[in-house]
Amino acid sequence: MIDTGSTIGKSFKRIDGVDKVTGAAKYATDLKFNNMLHAKLLRSPHAHAKVKQIDAAAARKLPGVKAIATILDVPKVLQYWFFLRTPKKEKQIFLRDNVVRFIGDPVLAVAAVDEQTAEKALSLVHVEYERLPAIFDPVEAMKETDIKIHERGNIAFQVKKELGDIAAGFKKADVIVENTYHTSKQKHASIEPIGTCIADFESNGKLTIHSSTQLPHWSQHYLAGALGLRLHKVRVIKPYTGGAFGGRCGVIHGLEVMCSWLSRETLQPVKMSFTRAEDFCATETRHPMMIKMKTGATRQGVLTANEVEILSDTGGYGTHYIGVIADCMSTGIGLYNIENYQFSGKAVYTNKSMCGALRGYGNPQMNFAQESQIDIIAQKIGMDPLQIRLQNYRKKGEMDPILNERILSNGLEECLQKGAASSDWKKKRTRQPDKDYIKSGIGLSCMLHGTGAARALPDPSSATVMINSDGTASLHTAAADEGQGNRTVLAQVASEILGIEFENIEVSQPDTDITPLDCGTHGSRQAYCGGLAVRDAAMDARKKMLVYATEMLELKKWDHLSVKNGVIFETANPGNQIPIEEVMRKTQIGDMGICRQIIGTASGIAPAMPGYYGAVFAEVEVNTRTGDVKVKKLTSAFDVGKAINPDFVEGQIVGGGVMGIGFALTEGLQYKDGHVLNPNFTDYRILRSCDTPRIEPIIVESNEPSGPFGAKGIGEGSMVNVASAISNAVFHATGVRSKRLCITPEQILQGLAELK
Amino acid sequence: MIDTGSTIGKSFKRIDGVDKVTGAAKYATDLKFNNMLHAKLLRSPHAHAKVKQIDAAAARKLPGVKAIATILDVPKVLQYWFFLRTPKKEKQIFLRDNVVRFIGDPVLAVAAVDEQTAEKALSLVHVEYERLPAIFDPVEAMKETDIKIHERGNIAFQVKKELGDIAAGFKKADVIVENTYHTSKQKHASIEPIGTCIADFESNGKLTIHSSTQLPHWSQHYLAGALGLRLHKVRVIKPYTGGAFGGRCGVIHGLEVMCSWLSRETLQPVKMSFTRAEDFCATETRHPMMIKMKTGATRQGVLTANEVEILSDTGGYGTHYIGVIADCMSTGIGLYNIENYQFSGKAVYTNKSMCGALRGYGNPQMNFAQESQIDIIAQKIGMDPLQIRLQNYRKKGEMDPILNERILSNGLEECLQKGAASSDWKKKRTRQPDKDYIKSGIGLSCMLHGTGAARALPDPSSATVMINSDGTASLHTAAADEGQGNRTVLAQVASEILGIEFENIEVSQPDTDITPLDCGTHGSRQAYCGGLAVRDAAMDARKKMLVYATEMLELKKWDHLSVKNGVIFETANPGNQIPIEEVMRKTQIGDMGICRQIIGTASGIAPAMPGYYGAVFAEVEVNTRTGDVKVKKLTSAFDVGKAINPDFVEGQIVGGGVMGIGFALTEGLQYKDGHVLNPNFTDYRILRSCDTPRIEPIIVESNEPSGPFGAKGIGEGSMVNVASAISNAVFHATGVRSKRLCITPEQILQGLAELK
Repeated sequence: MIDTGSTIGKSFKRIDGVDKVTGAAKYATDLKFNNMLHAKLLRSPHAHAKVKQIDAAAARKLPGVKAIATILDVPKVLQYWFFLRTPKKEKQIFLRDNVVRFIGDPVLAVAAVDEQTAEKALSLVHVEYERLPAIFDPVEAMKETDIKIHERGNIAFQVKKELGDIAAGFKKADVIVENTYHTSKQKHASIEPIGTCIADFESNGKLTIHSSTQLPHWSQHYLAGALGLRLHKVRVIKPYTGGAFGGRCGVIHGLEVMCSWLSRETLQPVKMSFTRAEDFCATETRHPMMIKMKTGATRQGVLTANEVEILSDTGGYGTHYIGVIADCMSTGIGLYNIENYQFSGKAVYTNKSMCGALRGYGNPQMNFAQESQIDIIAQKIGMDPLQIRLQNYRKKGEMDPILNERILSNGLEECLQKGAASSDWKKKRTRQPDKDYIKSGIGLSCMLHGTGAARALPDPSSATVMINSDGTASLHTAAADEGQGNRTVLAQVASEILGIEFENIEVSQPDTDITPLDCGTHGSRQAYCGGLAVRDAAMDARKKMLVYATEMLELKKWDHLSVKNGVIFETANPGNQIPIEEVMRKTQIGDMGICRQIIGTASGIAPAMPGYYGAVFAEVEVNTRTGDVKVKKLTSAFDVGKAINPDFVEGQIVGGGVMGIGFALTEGLQYKDGHVLNPNFTDYRILRSCDTPRIEPIIVESNEPSGPFGAKGIGEGSMVNVASAISNAVFHATGVRSKRLCITPEQILQGLAELK
Repeated sequence: MIDTGSTIGKSFKRIDGVDKVTGAAKYATDLKFNNMLHAKLLRSPHAHAKVKQIDAAAARKLPGVKAIATILDVPKVLQYWFFLRTPKKEKQIFLRDNVVRFIGDPVLAVAAVDEQTAEKALSLVHVEYERLPAIFDPVEAMKETDIKIHERGNIAFQVKKELGDIAAGFKKADVIVENTYHTSKQKHASIEPIGTCIADFESNGKLTIHSSTQLPHWSQHYLAGALGLRLHKVRVIKPYTGGAFGGRCGVIHGLEVMCSWLSRETLQPVKMSFTRAEDFCATETRHPMMIKMKTGATRQGVLTANEVEILSDTGGYGTHYIGVIADCMSTGIGLYNIENYQFSGKAVYTNKSMCGALRGYGNPQMNFAQESQIDIIAQKIGMDPLQIRLQNYRKKGEMDPILNERILSNGLEECLQKGAASSDWKKKRTRQPDKDYIKSGIGLSCMLHGTGAARALPDPSSATVMINSDGTASLHTAAADEGQGNRTVLAQVASEILGIEFENIEVSQPDTDITPLDCGTHGSRQAYCGGLAVRDAAMDARKKMLVYATEMLELKKWDHLSVKNGVIFETANPGNQIPIEEVMRKTQIGDMGICRQIIGTASGIAPAMPGYYGAVFAEVEVNTRTGDVKVKKLTSAFDVGKAINPDFVEGQIVGGGVMGIGFALTEGLQYKDGHVLNPNFTDYRILRSCDTPRIEPIIVESNEPSGPFGAKGIGEGSMVNVASAISNAVFHATGVRSKRLCITPEQILQGLAELK
């Protein structure tokens, strides 16, 4: 791999930084078009009902109302891009029926000249519902019941996987612990509410939508399918986006399709923007899970068996319910070498808002259960929780039994050692119990997360690089950047390979008419998968460029040349050199016999989905009078293969820490009779700046051989094992073992009472 | 060459036809942006003056005025893209001084919140001029004079070329004719006035301009140079355009740069739109020429010598003055095999609006002189004008002495024969003279025009083809389409090669951030040069696609496959087939081990600049009482190599006929003391529908081996020799030989008087 040290490993500022701080960056809600209409959704007040009749006559007559679409006209988009693989499977993405399945489920959309008129029109619509009994509890949903949320029943998906001999495994165990864990219905809570779309269907039959999707190309596919259009007639453009965290990982329920439908009816641009309350109540959430886990180990700390049974509540509809359970399985089984493993998972429908992808994608739930189990075992056998992990994790060179791939890089040991050293683990872990009512503790946890989805989902990445005649370059990639800095990192990769200065690389915004096929930003994949595509496209362009320079420098072989900081030179004789600008001007303009632009392309799948690893050390103080848990510090060490932009990696680790603390202590939708009780930032508590402890990021670089410059992922993993570390720390501080997220003061006080 | 007959040679409708007839197509003047300012130019009232001082204080204070730029701040853009070849040459493109050189020369631009405020502001500006003596006559300009329009003098360019031995040539001649011809200052007169630009300079340092340029990439280069920006920070987007004819072949004087400058000052989008009067008075025109020609021939009709001296009036500034004279030379020398040829040309400055590129690019002027000379010789030696041309034209296989290339296709004989047959030449040419005061006549003329500029200018073409997972495809090309249908023709080429139905090909608009390097639409080049790039990019994609299909069809070699109408099949066993859609879905989504989009690219120069040929037969009626000339019919036969879209070729032939009649009879700017007397369509007469005779297009296909599917050019040539045919017909009808365009009634009456 070419790495001249020019750009890789340097913390360049975000290429869109100036746009964002000056307010020049246009987010979807900022976009306005001539003749633009505004659309609003009428949402179901019932958790489960049949729509018998919709009387929209009065609304249609309201001056300024231009079009109305109902769920009787427009298909709902469910499932995810795994289902695009065949025409038959693709049909399962779409659902058109007259049932509403949660409070907030869209029934109808109206497009009008302004928002006020659209809202007035909604108030004039009369919907006749036939109320159906609702199910809110996933355990209820699973039982034999006449209440069927979907035609095929309430079980959306189930899977079972067995490795080794589970019974034999437990026989070998000296200690067996069995517990049931529950996790909350967390929201993405991005700064920009999820759900803004402007659809513009033109009279020539072309639909253009501006939508803050993470998956521009799959949104294109979904919309084409829902509206019966060919792909070249659907253009998806992603503007700047204020955070996503998985919440924009698909076509947002009721948004893009309805918006596009209304635009097709009116041949005017139609804009729909969800409010914060709509985001909270009616877009996807993390899957709440009930996880039963039975784990066995020997007195020496060998993990002999793990039996896992997951019940995942996917809400009224499902998109990612299969993948999320699969991720529980692969990350749970993948992290430790437990010979005998039995995994079963079920996803069931309930009459709550649907669940989908959220940073970690099943892993935080699974990790909470498994890392708690291991902590309990360590305590039972009197072993250092650090030691039991060092002893059991799957090392470099071992096989991953789910992916059936050899682990080519694993820096977990370094993460554990560095984190332990930096957090002063040994000392803090063994200190005397506090005598005051404020109890301190330290806990740790590990995690593995896959990079990308090469073995699990269609996972293409592509890039095109065009070099300009002045030696600057344009990079076309559909890698969506929700704020994490993908475009900057990809520019760094292109810069390093091409030898063109970072500031001379321009990066496109995702636009399906322009940027080649990319499966979007998810699965911590863009530095790795996107980086590989950019690397290969840049290598293609680099070679073509060097071939011309070879002749100009009177050499024979292009690979005798190097390039750095805009200058091409003979590797063995750097004084023999020529600026890229000179070569490019000559080949594109100067020599009238050539006049060729250098264009490099690449498209394909990453060769692996390498695991990246992390160890989080959490220090807490528990107020035993109030039950309040306060995180004092996180020490988060993550093996990212190679940090192409260290500042961004640290940003991910710190941001993941903040989200992880929220998952542990404060974040989760609260329901009563199907109503969300906390659909706003006053009642749904994400961490404020003043709530956030010191988070120390530690970057470990294990040099993943399949990655660009050794890089693999970080985005999701950084939040995965924060809650488990905190829960383990709470136990260390108080002896109270939390088995339910969020860990509330009430739970702590009850636990303390039970200890007495 | 792959040609399954699916799309090549079929008259598909324009892909933007629906947009245009429904009004959905957005032209530059239709574009509006948030916070957009409006700019207006203050223009010089003097033909030649020094700007001593500009007092804009009052204008700056006017509420709503946001910025002012003057010629003291902003460089003028002159020259053309030949000068981009080296950094040293590039500097000659820019001129910054305090001199105004024609009435209408911009002095200052103001940007304000609306047009009214901008205009009011102009009225508040006081400019102190030092008037300089003006020169309007090119002959005066050439003389030794103290009046220097440019520092280096009044001669912009001169060239001399000699083939054979001119004196010996005249010695061999039995007949020598010597005449001086004059041509008019024709305007492009496109439906959309020339000159609209919206410049948007963002705080991140990026300039985006929307401009109806024919040369998006060269505009990008000019703007980068003028403003000191790198190329990746300048984005040029071309919206729909209402005709160009060479008038948008560069950065329009005072428009893009001033507009961009104002946007950089204000960080707001700035729009400037020229009025029709501004278009007429202050954008480029055809070069008026004075051509002295002395031609010798034997009694047998062998052309033995031609001596040509051209004086080209380039106005106050020059852009294309070199190329235009070079084109006179290459087309004049190229068409006939005249062994001894002496060519000299001079371009001089005068204090009139500058000249530039206009359909034909020097050829119509040269052709008028040379085809008149040949007609005169034919008459003198009593030979059929058809015969003398058949006898002297350069045939296929001969060398072109200017390009130094062998002629690979030449259908001129077929053009002459078919045109003669269809116009009933023989009968009409030999009929008895009319006795009435209405005199009828028929005349003919030939022409050669080069396709593209591969040997004359940097002439790159590029294309990228991306195939979608449903078997539709996107074509990226910067080939500007001003209405002639380039994008449709290029879609046909891509469709034929890829075997994807025409309607399933989407074509980009030119956008320098997206579409690869193209030198723009000029020189009749896009079907040929653009077509070659698209062909090669599509071939690249086709091969990649067939390689995957080979395996799916259980074959060994990809070139055993064919593809047509969206289906790939074994050539020898067409029953063994698979739809493209199936192959593409599988490779991009279905097979998770591939997930690769097919992307094909090509960039480079055409292998030749093949000549295309035409013969025009004009029938006229001349009213000998009024001097009015009425064209009754044109029969226009053109060899285009291969008509990829016959309707479009016929459209070019008919449109060129209309413009040619205008050039012959009605079109030309009239000046008095440097003022244009006819800056509007009432006084500047282009042909109305009711003025237009029947024009019979005849397509001849000579199959140019270097072209895509045998194609070469047509766009410019179709107007080149119309005026000469009409003039020759007028002579046939009346005996009056016109040596000055336009042929006015006064001229005819004077000629008739002289005959008596």
